[in-house]
Amino acid sequence: MSMRSELGEAPEIVRSLVERQRGVIDSVGEAIASRPVDLVLMAARGTSDHAAIYAQYIFGVYNKLPVALAAPSIQSLYGVAPRLRNALAIGVSQSGQSPDVVGVIEEARRQNALTIAITNDVKSPLSRAAEFHIDIHAGRERAVAATKTYVAELTALAMLSTALQDDGVARKQLAEVPDAIAAALGLEELVAAAARDQAGMQRAVILGRGFNYATALEWSLKLKEMSYVLADAYSTADFEHGPIAMIDPGFVVHAIAADGPTLPEIKAVLGRLREAGARLVVASNSVDALAFAEVPLRLPAAPEWLSPLSAIIPGQLFAYHLALAKHLDTERPRHIQKVTKTR
Amino acid sequence: MSMRSELGEAPEIVRSLVERQRGVIDSVGEAIASRPVDLVLMAARGTSDHAAIYAQYIFGVYNKLPVALAAPSIQSLYGVAPRLRNALAIGVSQSGQSPDVVGVIEEARRQNALTIAITNDVKSPLSRAAEFHIDIHAGRERAVAATKTYVAELTALAMLSTALQDDGVARKQLAEVPDAIAAALGLEELVAAAARDQAGMQRAVILGRGFNYATALEWSLKLKEMSYVLADAYSTADFEHGPIAMIDPGFVVHAIAADGPTLPEIKAVLGRLREAGARLVVASNSVDALAFAEVPLRLPAAPEWLSPLSAIIPGQLFAYHLALAKHLDTERPRHIQKVTKTR
Repeated sequence: MSMRSELGEAPEIVRSLVERQRGVIDSVGEAIASRPVDLVLMAARGTSDHAAIYAQYIFGVYNKLPVALAAPSIQSLYGVAPRLRNALAIGVSQSGQSPDVVGVIEEARRQNALTIAITNDVKSPLSRAAEFHIDIHAGRERAVAATKTYVAELTALAMLSTALQDDGVARKQLAEVPDAIAAALGLEELVAAAARDQAGMQRAVILGRGFNYATALEWSLKLKEMSYVLADAYSTADFEHGPIAMIDPGFVVHAIAADGPTLPEIKAVLGRLREAGARLVVASNSVDALAFAEVPLRLPAAPEWLSPLSAIIPGQLFAYHLALAKHLDTERPRHIQKVTKTR
Repeated sequence: MSMRSELGEAPEIVRSLVERQRGVIDSVGEAIASRPVDLVLMAARGTSDHAAIYAQYIFGVYNKLPVALAAPSIQSLYGVAPRLRNALAIGVSQSGQSPDVVGVIEEARRQNALTIAITNDVKSPLSRAAEFHIDIHAGRERAVAATKTYVAELTALAMLSTALQDDGVARKQLAEVPDAIAAALGLEELVAAAARDQAGMQRAVILGRGFNYATALEWSLKLKEMSYVLADAYSTADFEHGPIAMIDPGFVVHAIAADGPTLPEIKAVLGRLREAGARLVVASNSVDALAFAEVPLRLPAAPEWLSPLSAIIPGQLFAYHLALAKHLDTERPRHIQKVTKTR
């Protein structure tokens, strides 16, 4: 099994989650609805932290819940537990092993907050620490760089948000995600050619906004860990507050531009970048946004809230093919391990 | 007035804030203490967003408050206002102009949350939107890159946290910050030489952890906006979860390593980086951490919670001298404006 074949499993994993885990996730949703919740606290690291950022948007926009991303070191290093009155604490981790994430969930449960673990290992410390466990059922992930488990984590979070509103339209849209992911996988040839063409790049900027801010972050992490490119991710809003100064002619920018309320702003930034001479790779389901690109990657039609589940695919493929073009080890990047036990 | 002279004003600005604004900030603290607060919601962009991250640690560790960083687009682009029952909402902005930040505070006030604006302009929309206003009294900042106002924002937040606990020791420590900043300014010659030496760099990684994660983020932003280096900031914990794979011999890494509970982990990462051949610039008040560095920058002794107020100074100086070495405009970097009105 390689990273490439693992990422190709995403459509079937999402299909299985949507069909088989609905009962479990709906019952977690009922438990949440029965308690006062002023705050969702997300605890996660690395790739799972990007799923947590997706959660910030999805719970904010569809469930009107404010979401905080835990700074686990407040507890693990400074020895202080913030007061979690009326909190819902969610730990997200493929392995369920990271002691600092486990620590946040254990403390939240001690304070009688509602706790949920989202993991790929039902027997992990994180799964056992939480009151409720959602198994992402992604099968073992051998490659160090997480791919299918990221998409599965997003799916579990989207299903949880949907369970909290019991929305029939949303459930139908969820059922269409596997086909959208399969369509995104069809971009591979185009992506591989672009990756070969950009094999010499040492740095890049990755832009997204709203729901796809998480996509930009995860896309950049794949480029960093798989192909050693210093790829910096930004919300287009923050990017305009300073970092845009870095852009000179030839600078590589990848942008994720999903159709929706964020599109006008992203298009405006793409226009400024094109004027500044940036080389633009644009993943979008908007013809207008694609028109700015040197490399247009046409994403499948999708409601914006679910677009991150397919929009990350060309990013994963790009990192994989860039690693191949650079003759790097796609399964075991240097310096890193599959499970990092930060405290 | 130049960026260099503005950053040099930090000691006097902090001294004046600590001495003159204590009454105002203590009364804001009393208002907070009189209400139930389950959550602090920070709304900010750019440099001020890094002050918000400092707030996450300071309110978490010293006031046991969970802190969420608002995603302003949830409201400004998706048109949804998260429920802010029992929330304290704090907007931080030098200019007080950014419509999305103002929007978060207006909505929080509409929902009867306690609202505070921290700005450098008492007449700004943000100051008028909030129930309480803390003026950072930094004087006009003309350079596009914020320096003195960042230190002043941190000071106001540190004072607010202190007001909530009414801690005599903390107040004494605050009074010593101006001298620490002045001592950090004394590093200028060393920093300028290092900047000239690294003038050819196009990318770098900036590391911090805990309270100084904010310092790493702001240090990297200065390098990006002033000297066009793609400088990527990480908590050392997240860095080990993947991005460390990018490091090859000669890669430039700047690290902020303050004495305290985060130091052992940072030292372990510095050891791995040195083995991997990274070129290390280390700003630290720990002799052990400085021993890993090619360029050791000895920070003044400071309690860890206040160390970010002086630790950012060598980063600001580095960005300034790197811009000079690269013959760039230190006052008006390309592509960006002083006030960015993101929606």
